[in-house]
Amino acid sequence: MAHKFIGEIGPGESVDDIYMVREPILRSTTRGDLYIAMFLSDRSGQLNGRMWQATEAVYKSLPKPGFVHIQGRSELYQNNLQIIINNISVVDASKVQLEDFLARTDKDTEQMFEEVKGIIGRIKQPQLKSLVGEFLADSELMEKFCNAPGGTKLHHSYLGGLLEHTCSMLRVAVAILPLYPKVQEDLVLAGIFLHDMGKTEELSYDMAFSYTDSGQLIGHIVQTLLMVNQKAEALAVKGTPVDKPILDALGHIILSHHGQYDFGSPKLPATPEAFIVYYIDDLDAKMNQVTAAIDNELSDSNWTAWQNALQTRLYKKRIEEM
Amino acid sequence: MAHKFIGEIGPGESVDDIYMVREPILRSTTRGDLYIAMFLSDRSGQLNGRMWQATEAVYKSLPKPGFVHIQGRSELYQNNLQIIINNISVVDASKVQLEDFLARTDKDTEQMFEEVKGIIGRIKQPQLKSLVGEFLADSELMEKFCNAPGGTKLHHSYLGGLLEHTCSMLRVAVAILPLYPKVQEDLVLAGIFLHDMGKTEELSYDMAFSYTDSGQLIGHIVQTLLMVNQKAEALAVKGTPVDKPILDALGHIILSHHGQYDFGSPKLPATPEAFIVYYIDDLDAKMNQVTAAIDNELSDSNWTAWQNALQTRLYKKRIEEM
Amino acid sequence: MAHKFIGEIGPGESVDDIYMVREPILRSTTRGDLYIAMFLSDRSGQLNGRMWQATEAVYKSLPKPGFVHIQGRSELYQNNLQIIINNISVVDASKVQLEDFLARTDKDTEQMFEEVKGIIGRIKQPQLKSLVGEFLADSELMEKFCNAPGGTKLHHSYLGGLLEHTCSMLRVAVAILPLYPKVQEDLVLAGIFLHDMGKTEELSYDMAFSYTDSGQLIGHIVQTLLMVNQKAEALAVKGTPVDKPILDALGHIILSHHGQYDFGSPKLPATPEAFIVYYIDDLDAKMNQVTAAIDNELSDSNWTAWQNALQTRLYKKRIEEM
Amino acid sequence: MAHKFIGEIGPGESVDDIYMVREPILRSTTRGDLYIAMFLSDRSGQLNGRMWQATEAVYKSLPKPGFVHIQGRSELYQNNLQIIINNISVVDASKVQLEDFLARTDKDTEQMFEEVKGIIGRIKQPQLKSLVGEFLADSELMEKFCNAPGGTKLHHSYLGGLLEHTCSMLRVAVAILPLYPKVQEDLVLAGIFLHDMGKTEELSYDMAFSYTDSGQLIGHIVQTLLMVNQKAEALAVKGTPVDKPILDALGHIILSHHGQYDFGSPKLPATPEAFIVYYIDDLDAKMNQVTAAIDNELSDSNWTAWQNALQTRLYKKRIEEM
Amino acid sequence: MAHKFIGEIGPGESVDDIYMVREPILRSTTRGDLYIAMFLSDRSGQLNGRMWQATEAVYKSLPKPGFVHIQGRSELYQNNLQIIINNISVVDASKVQLEDFLARTDKDTEQMFEEVKGIIGRIKQPQLKSLVGEFLADSELMEKFCNAPGGTKLHHSYLGGLLEHTCSMLRVAVAILPLYPKVQEDLVLAGIFLHDMGKTEELSYDMAFSYTDSGQLIGHIVQTLLMVNQKAEALAVKGTPVDKPILDALGHIILSHHGQYDFGSPKLPATPEAFIVYYIDDLDAKMNQVTAAIDNELSDSNWTAWQNALQTRLYKKRIEEM
Amino acid sequence: MAHKFIGEIGPGESVDDIYMVREPILRSTTRGDLYIAMFLSDRSGQLNGRMWQATEAVYKSLPKPGFVHIQGRSELYQNNLQIIINNISVVDASKVQLEDFLARTDKDTEQMFEEVKGIIGRIKQPQLKSLVGEFLADSELMEKFCNAPGGTKLHHSYLGGLLEHTCSMLRVAVAILPLYPKVQEDLVLAGIFLHDMGKTEELSYDMAFSYTDSGQLIGHIVQTLLMVNQKAEALAVKGTPVDKPILDALGHIILSHHGQYDFGSPKLPATPEAFIVYYIDDLDAKMNQVTAAIDNELSDSNWTAWQNALQTRLYKKRIEEM
Repeated sequence: MAHKFIGEIGPGESVDDIYMVREPILRSTTRGDLYIAMFLSDRSGQLNGRMWQATEAVYKSLPKPGFVHIQGRSELYQNNLQIIINNISVVDASKVQLEDFLARTDKDTEQMFEEVKGIIGRIKQPQLKSLVGEFLADSELMEKFCNAPGGTKLHHSYLGGLLEHTCSMLRVAVAILPLYPKVQEDLVLAGIFLHDMGKTEELSYDMAFSYTDSGQLIGHIVQTLLMVNQKAEALAVKGTPVDKPILDALGHIILSHHGQYDFGSPKLPATPEAFIVYYIDDLDAKMNQVTAAIDNELSDSNWTAWQNALQTRLYKKRIEEM
Repeated sequence: MAHKFIGEIGPGESVDDIYMVREPILRSTTRGDLYIAMFLSDRSGQLNGRMWQATEAVYKSLPKPGFVHIQGRSELYQNNLQIIINNISVVDASKVQLEDFLARTDKDTEQMFEEVKGIIGRIKQPQLKSLVGEFLADSELMEKFCNAPGGTKLHHSYLGGLLEHTCSMLRVAVAILPLYPKVQEDLVLAGIFLHDMGKTEELSYDMAFSYTDSGQLIGHIVQTLLMVNQKAEALAVKGTPVDKPILDALGHIILSHHGQYDFGSPKLPATPEAFIVYYIDDLDAKMNQVTAAIDNELSDSNWTAWQNALQTRLYKKRIEEM
Repeated sequence: MAHKFIGEIGPGESVDDIYMVREPILRSTTRGDLYIAMFLSDRSGQLNGRMWQATEAVYKSLPKPGFVHIQGRSELYQNNLQIIINNISVVDASKVQLEDFLARTDKDTEQMFEEVKGIIGRIKQPQLKSLVGEFLADSELMEKFCNAPGGTKLHHSYLGGLLEHTCSMLRVAVAILPLYPKVQEDLVLAGIFLHDMGKTEELSYDMAFSYTDSGQLIGHIVQTLLMVNQKAEALAVKGTPVDKPILDALGHIILSHHGQYDFGSPKLPATPEAFIVYYIDDLDAKMNQVTAAIDNELSDSNWTAWQNALQTRLYKKRIEEM
Repeated sequence: MAHKFIGEIGPGESVDDIYMVREPILRSTTRGDLYIAMFLSDRSGQLNGRMWQATEAVYKSLPKPGFVHIQGRSELYQNNLQIIINNISVVDASKVQLEDFLARTDKDTEQMFEEVKGIIGRIKQPQLKSLVGEFLADSELMEKFCNAPGGTKLHHSYLGGLLEHTCSMLRVAVAILPLYPKVQEDLVLAGIFLHDMGKTEELSYDMAFSYTDSGQLIGHIVQTLLMVNQKAEALAVKGTPVDKPILDALGHIILSHHGQYDFGSPKLPATPEAFIVYYIDDLDAKMNQVTAAIDNELSDSNWTAWQNALQTRLYKKRIEEM
Repeated sequence: MAHKFIGEIGPGESVDDIYMVREPILRSTTRGDLYIAMFLSDRSGQLNGRMWQATEAVYKSLPKPGFVHIQGRSELYQNNLQIIINNISVVDASKVQLEDFLARTDKDTEQMFEEVKGIIGRIKQPQLKSLVGEFLADSELMEKFCNAPGGTKLHHSYLGGLLEHTCSMLRVAVAILPLYPKVQEDLVLAGIFLHDMGKTEELSYDMAFSYTDSGQLIGHIVQTLLMVNQKAEALAVKGTPVDKPILDALGHIILSHHGQYDFGSPKLPATPEAFIVYYIDDLDAKMNQVTAAIDNELSDSNWTAWQNALQTRLYKKRIEEM
Repeated sequence: MAHKFIGEIGPGESVDDIYMVREPILRSTTRGDLYIAMFLSDRSGQLNGRMWQATEAVYKSLPKPGFVHIQGRSELYQNNLQIIINNISVVDASKVQLEDFLARTDKDTEQMFEEVKGIIGRIKQPQLKSLVGEFLADSELMEKFCNAPGGTKLHHSYLGGLLEHTCSMLRVAVAILPLYPKVQEDLVLAGIFLHDMGKTEELSYDMAFSYTDSGQLIGHIVQTLLMVNQKAEALAVKGTPVDKPILDALGHIILSHHGQYDFGSPKLPATPEAFIVYYIDDLDAKMNQVTAAIDNELSDSNWTAWQNALQTRLYKKRIEEM
């Protein structure tokens, strides 16, 4: 049965579905009766929930945050919709359709992954080829790579966003590399495929888009480098080591791909390949961010709200409307 | 007869050719005889010149700087090569092959201009089409456009560099626009074609790459905008005006194409088209700058000299050498 | 009949006047009845408005935002004053006294404009004189110049503020130019008169102080330059062109008058005249901003609230109170 | 007898005058003979000096740096003028016309000081009046105030520059204060008179423009504040104390007059008076710096050399030349 | 009788104690009755207070802000606790235990002050010794020194914080000075003891932690320097002056101890002693700030909230929990 | 036989020793004879060398740069000392006393290493203890650790400098950790011991202090992290893995120890341990840099030359000289 989205609930409807619960609080009314206030949400929005005649036992059983099955009814209170809860029971995350709670790319994940594999299949240099092969052969990692978001807020912040961003960057590379023949294709393709791989460890996305402890302490840039070195180590054990200079040239692309110290790159680009990966990454991220901001703006104005990360509002009007 | 380049002159050779003279100074020897010291140069390098038994009349006749025909002989003095001048006469700039004195693109100018016209021929929006047409029809301007340098120092700093840079950017746009279907192609192509047009007024390149007075006071970004408005004015006079919103959307791309206030853009990008033009411009300029810096570095080191504008040295070693 | 200002309405009064309506929303009560919530404002403040027993037709008729004639009554609700609306009808902006809705300078506009004309009447250089004359002769533009605000927030943000600011700067110039005899008076006076002329196009002030589309895409600095070049073009057509170097020297003052790249100037001051116009502009703007902030602070404290643009609070105590 | 300036010495002239000696070095020729190399200078320039047949005793007697009486002869060596010294003897600084060695204002010091006294004579608030009076009564300090430079490099860097700068600022204040009637004149005039008084302690100018130890450790801004507090202390001892709030308001003007933390102000302007003093100071300093840079540029170019402190070259062409 | 802390009041309790009142406002109900709304607080928190049946006379008698004795009762209103006031009377600040309202160090003030005196007792240089002695002999100042907070927000922001911070810095100095034998101990110890002494004048802490007028206009860095110079002046009057170079070296440590212009230091560290005092100050402040932020974070998360001054969240998990 | 240092050679002495040769150039005299110009250096300085009657074969045999045995004679030429070379032969780097060519710490390396081992012997947490043990057991790495410089220019830029800096930091930690009891000693000690370990790979110091290719591409911060992860991997293979959270907490200290993005740290300090290691590192580096700059300044001035990295000159005068 299809999930009933928060954004679709009207006043006076009965509710019987799974939602995410956040910040439940046990309170007492002026008459001394206990009740639980909480937020209920899915990826379409959030409402207040109230469970009157609650007990401390029920309160303690609730995850903070987590998934719950709710039975109750919506009502208007001071012109705001809220849900009056009759029954609440905890639901295991494994029973939940994660897509109901977190946005997911509207593109076909499998197809994009096939395209990625096709493009990096062009790599000819044997050591880079086998290094990339080690990643492809790690099916657990590849599953994360296909499902992780590309970020928590600014761009590609939805399930599958990391893959979508990587795939889009590879397409750009294939399109423009012929125009810059001195740039070494193998390094660029391997660099793009791997550049954000550490986001599979940096980001957590089981209930919301956030950061893991390791992600906050180490960060995806360095986590990616560690993964590359572990795969290279594994190849060395197999008797097919990657030469240090090649590993360093690839590592440099990864470390410098944010292009500036202020954005967390410990090295500035110092090779043509590092420059082109940095520009393709920034271009693709900004095009996603800008078009998403314009698409998500619902007001009649010709301009979006202020975009702090871009230090401007964005103009929405198209030529055909001018 | 082919020009004898400064860089090809050895010690003890006779010299009979045109060079640029700079900073001539009239001095007297310890015995009281007058002589003229000067620098002689072409695009291959620079040498000291000495004309003994000079007169004040000869000194006064010399351009500061300008072109001169030299007859004389090279000799080593304190292990440095210098030219002892017997005869010197002023040469009009119109008689000179500018390419002997200023670097020129190694690509075919005509062919690139044809390609540019082909690509902007895709523009469909009638007003943008006619605006671009006004520029193409201005043959005096188009000749400057085909010959101007792209800058004085950092990137595309050679005759024809402006055309080469614009053409390369258009190629990139054609290659990647299909990947970002929400971006309006007409605006992007017109924006790229025109973005640096003002450099034809900002830069002077009759003897060396430098700035005009107008270029230093106003700058090519605003000069471009003025040119666009003049052409639009001309169209209005003809009865086919360009609507203000379209002119503003195009003008915004031009004003914001440096991407940051610090680089002289009075506006930050606020449309998808402005963002993509900014990224393509920066990418193409940096790829030219980076590969030129690597190509021009002659030392055995794996690294170029420090590149101040990039805040790093550049790594020259290629995978096949690793 | 004098407008009844929002700030003068007490509880339990009848209301029958024109106000600006913003963000009207159609809602339903818990019983299912429709009502409209909205904000009603004039330059003295803003109140909530509620129209019970509303219809969708009424809601759709309302401007968002715009002017409406309200009949109703004020009442206290949860200790906040609100207006209960019985009748609401749209009013055309042309029927409205704009001064009731937007702050206006407390100085005499006509007198200031006369003073401005008197001061720029000192300009002797024929081409600058005729260029300035073109502006004065454009009566439509001059009316905007006399009525536009000087900005939307920080300084001179009231109707007539642009004129007041320009006039004040001209007075300062007249007072100090004799102290700096090497500075060219004609350029300074013309530069000040014109420096913010583009704000007549950048700002919109028919209902509130905000930015036009063109203002956000191009900005008043470049808009001013375009206006100057259009007037110069008109003079050229008349056979009395302004020489390019003079136009560039004036244009440079306009482009650089914010003094820093970060504040949107695409060029830094490079002539004595550009420096003095920049300093006079900044001085006059800050003195207006600082004294307004002090005058508007009503608390007993010796200090105003934090002024973010100045990165400090301001000290209000005067010597005679010390 | 008038000093013979370095800049006026031609080849083959006899020299018999006082110059400043710097960096004398005792060397031996290839034959083992001792000689002394040194720089000789006055405010017009600098030449190499050589004393052949020197002794270690002569070398040791020389100041490093200091004044010496030279007898000798000029000659050309490798096309550079140098002075061959026959006799050298140390001269006490008290015997020297300091103006021959350090640039001095071309304005009349006495007259400017009278004007300063006239302007600050307008101060009416009794405590500020008596505080300023304490400074005027300190004749030793006032003599330094009339002779100190305004800085070591950028602006007013000549003897009498501090007075000239202060006087010029007071004139500007008198000219524009009527235009800003809410600004308290007494505080502004006292603030300007005192704002750089600490430069009399910060700068040393007995042989060259440089910094004292105390100047480098404490700086003129704080040194000025200490002087103000010492004078206030002296008034308190006399039974006519300056109230703390008045002292703080004046002190604040002094501390914040550089306008930015980066320029060594420990506080940002927070009163109208502090703002106006900051702007007048910056305006007057920059006008002096800009016009001096233009006047000192001797080349034919329309532009000065790059001015690092202004991040631009300066345009020299005037309207009448356009 | 112990103070009943705001944080300990439950619903439905009677209240009879002294609290701080802030922002009292006189309002009328919809029926036209007057009542007073206000905030009541102590160092444990803040609640809304309501006094129904109030009079204008009562309202006028209330301090804004200040201390009041409240009699009344707590109740829940819309799930928030508020206090219904029956009686309110003003209390003089001298009758109040300041510790009930402002946080105080949990360390023993007397013991810390003894330790401070012990450590600065090591100073051997006679002039520094007597200068420090002047401060110790100023018992009024020393009492303030022992009670003042170390700041208003970021670190050591509690009564006694200045002493705690100074004492802690002296301990660090004693611990590490033996490791840097070229650093002059006497200057470091005197510098640390005095470095923030001006906070006794900059900060006000009679009811809340805030800034005095003098503190905002002058700042503790310069206020400290003025105090040092006053004490030196007093010594000079007694016939035991402190030499200028010693005073300057000490003053330099004080002026530069924030280490950067942006943090209000008018001079950058230029002696080994200035560097070490700057580092010890920054280290001790940050360790206090970081551990306090971690201790004050009550959530279950492994991370504190975002710390704006540190541009990061802080990780709370300890090794033994890993 | 002791090396004859460049700095000790006088004119007219015979020379027979090993020096470093740099930038040899083959030139011809005006008569057409070949000669070789080169620089000869050791850690005491550098001189010009000239080998007349050279052959192309000799020139080609010379390292660029490298070590050579020189036989010849010193002479004065235009008052500069140079060496006339009769015989030159290449010397293998293994035959050379590196200390003659590169500065070395004046402290006892063995003793410092013992002290380091003693201090990190305090670590109790078993996993950190075994991780540190892996490093100590890697004798090849430890030898590099004891000999590497601490940097190429600013601080501890001499052989053994890395060890000296690490040892000094550990001493500071031991001295101050008792003052900050909430800080976890084990993490701090392990963090300091390892923080710059990657400099053994980043820096090359066989003939001069410079960077390896890997050092420039990856940098010591990330290189250190890779080493830590390799040692942890080795422990995991042995069956005694280090838990991920512990590895991350240690890794975070390493990544953030430069304290700012601008200095190449990809993460800002987010734990008390990361803060204290950052401060101790910065303090120890600056104290070394400041005292070295003062010690190396030979002029009579009270001030060193301008220190660009510190943005100030340094004051050399000590209290006892005041």
